[in-house]
Amino acid sequence: MQKKVLDKGYVKLLKADKEEDILKVASICYGKKLVDLEKKKEFLIKKLMFEHAGNPTSSFEFVNFLFEVKCPIFVARQWMRHRIGSFQEISRRYVSDNLEFFVPEDLDEEEKTKYLEHIRLVENYYYNLINKGIRKEIARSILPLSLYTTFYWQVNLRSLINFLKVRLDKHAQREIREYAKAIYKLIKPYAPTVCKFLKEAIKE
Amino acid sequence: MQKKVLDKGYVKLLKADKEEDILKVASICYGKKLVDLEKKKEFLIKKLMFEHAGNPTSSFEFVNFLFEVKCPIFVARQWMRHRIGSFQEISRRYVSDNLEFFVPEDLDEEEKTKYLEHIRLVENYYYNLINKGIRKEIARSILPLSLYTTFYWQVNLRSLINFLKVRLDKHAQREIREYAKAIYKLIKPYAPTVCKFLKEAIKE
Amino acid sequence: MQKKVLDKGYVKLLKADKEEDILKVASICYGKKLVDLEKKKEFLIKKLMFEHAGNPTSSFEFVNFLFEVKCPIFVARQWMRHRIGSFQEISRRYVSDNLEFFVPEDLDEEEKTKYLEHIRLVENYYYNLINKGIRKEIARSILPLSLYTTFYWQVNLRSLINFLKVRLDKHAQREIREYAKAIYKLIKPYAPTVCKFLKEAIKE
Amino acid sequence: MQKKVLDKGYVKLLKADKEEDILKVASICYGKKLVDLEKKKEFLIKKLMFEHAGNPTSSFEFVNFLFEVKCPIFVARQWMRHRIGSFQEISRRYVSDNLEFFVPEDLDEEEKTKYLEHIRLVENYYYNLINKGIRKEIARSILPLSLYTTFYWQVNLRSLINFLKVRLDKHAQREIREYAKAIYKLIKPYAPTVCKFLKEAIKE
Repeated sequence: MQKKVLDKGYVKLLKADKEEDILKVASICYGKKLVDLEKKKEFLIKKLMFEHAGNPTSSFEFVNFLFEVKCPIFVARQWMRHRIGSFQEISRRYVSDNLEFFVPEDLDEEEKTKYLEHIRLVENYYYNLINKGIRKEIARSILPLSLYTTFYWQVNLRSLINFLKVRLDKHAQREIREYAKAIYKLIKPYAPTVCKFLKEAIKE
Repeated sequence: MQKKVLDKGYVKLLKADKEEDILKVASICYGKKLVDLEKKKEFLIKKLMFEHAGNPTSSFEFVNFLFEVKCPIFVARQWMRHRIGSFQEISRRYVSDNLEFFVPEDLDEEEKTKYLEHIRLVENYYYNLINKGIRKEIARSILPLSLYTTFYWQVNLRSLINFLKVRLDKHAQREIREYAKAIYKLIKPYAPTVCKFLKEAIKE
Repeated sequence: MQKKVLDKGYVKLLKADKEEDILKVASICYGKKLVDLEKKKEFLIKKLMFEHAGNPTSSFEFVNFLFEVKCPIFVARQWMRHRIGSFQEISRRYVSDNLEFFVPEDLDEEEKTKYLEHIRLVENYYYNLINKGIRKEIARSILPLSLYTTFYWQVNLRSLINFLKVRLDKHAQREIREYAKAIYKLIKPYAPTVCKFLKEAIKE
Repeated sequence: MQKKVLDKGYVKLLKADKEEDILKVASICYGKKLVDLEKKKEFLIKKLMFEHAGNPTSSFEFVNFLFEVKCPIFVARQWMRHRIGSFQEISRRYVSDNLEFFVPEDLDEEEKTKYLEHIRLVENYYYNLINKGIRKEIARSILPLSLYTTFYWQVNLRSLINFLKVRLDKHAQREIREYAKAIYKLIKPYAPTVCKFLKEAIKE
């Protein structure tokens, strides 16, 4: 499953556990039968999400997601500040082709043309440096933060809830918020109850 | 798959990714085709395990394992010092039946009988306290560290390698080492190359 | 500074930063002068604690505390489930003297006497095993979870706030809650504003 | 204390504990007197660094450092992949002045002039966008990865050793290696024994 984001980005959901796994894990903890917990799934997930005692959200760590993300570097930089989770990014030390750039939607058509002209100028200069034998990892320093990058992101539901709280918030930068919205939609079929309560908790 | 450990414990492998996933993730990073990487799997995994530049072992984080572990509390306490990973343990605040206790193999038959006598005395006293209405979570304070506990452990291959390095080491306490050996055997079919190089790296 | 907790335990505060450091760190982030931030300290700390965008509580990670804690093992087990922070515990593999045990306050005088009798019996048996040359790390398996242990705990304010939210909560086990209260009192002179807002946020 | 790095960057050491603290913490664990441990400091630190049993390097987590770092964004991106530690970075959402750019030393004088021309062009365009009222956080997307950024980095000695192993390695990118060398020199007076053994362990 895939959602397009911004002008050339996307989020793909490559692997997903289901929120029911929270109950499987909780059942071992509380010594209850799984079927009994499933009957009151909604009540239990709410309780685990919002009540504090005994660190209950640790059961959310057993529900894992794997995403492939293509986004501008300035978005990736905000994203990778979330430390609980694993990232593997395409490296510009090894890869120099297929450069793509984000063009802000805020700009009118005239301004977009100017923005693109600057991008093209710099892009040409980048290839120029590469052709002269300058190290790729150094040549890329001239490339702008609007350069698209691609990475794998493995994250558990506990950490993902935190990511969504921070990045769906109305104070988050608009561009990463678009990605957070795409992720919210992608995980909803796997974690409908969690998404429902999360939505209620977020100030929009 | 399951391995018995100590007198009444076990490790069950409930979920396992394969070490080939390391290459999938590495292929996005280095912009190489997966088939080309698979041809030199052994060479690459060795390189990723033992060479430092660029934090390559982060690709090992994408290979996940889920275990169910039954072990004495004094072993669980050492285990849970490994912080990168998720634990969910059966709680004695909620569960009071099915008490089982580890009896050290070091003891001769006469001593084992004495050890068991002490255990039984304390166990009876525990139920006595429960019957008098003392909180389970407080009554359990009289129970010994040899009490068996059960927990789920979710861990990625990077953190698991570290666990095995520390707990397979000849200086590790014998009891947790037995568990580390069981885990090593359980993951070997899924990560044969990693296990091979790990074995060479451990001082036994 | 030190607070007594339970019958023989304590928490000592060995090192403490001040909450003003949050503002120092925030000032670099927002490019504001420190004096200007200090004028509205209360407003800012509240904003950083409760608003989500941009992961602002990361500035709380720069305020560190070091505690020495003496508590029963069953409390230490709950404590060490908090993974963001560093623990160093006295090891029963190396140390076998100075055993002390928690006696629950829930018990009446008659019951306390019985509880202590069981403890003494087991303690004697432990030394008996040691004298017979049984490994300390195995002999300790007969000791109860009420055994006191001592550890150093280094934790940053962000993680500490989370600990206090979970362990001051009315659903937390009474014994660890006593420790959480002691910690709250110890850090209050160093983080009065944080403590004020934390208190408002906790359901008691 | 401060070291200049690259053309306009630096590392400042703002706070530093001493490696002796490792022994203080180890002394509680092993129940030994501190003076006895200090006599064989070198032997003990080597043992803790390179022997695995019992997770001994956790005592290194009690030795903390705080750095202020000014480096190009492409270096900061590699740096912030090290997740055990705390970062607080100057935000281009709030700050738009004082732009500085790294110019690669690899370039000859003629090429440096061209590189700078491209930088100036883009810089002017950035201010142009700002003046037109475009959001700072969007305007910055045109800025190159050679833009200097400033951040605070709090890290413990265990995580720092890992950083230095990875970033002093001969396979690390030359620019971040310069920063790793500066950090090595800055911490040496505080952790001379650790630095000595670290140097022996790194393949240069």
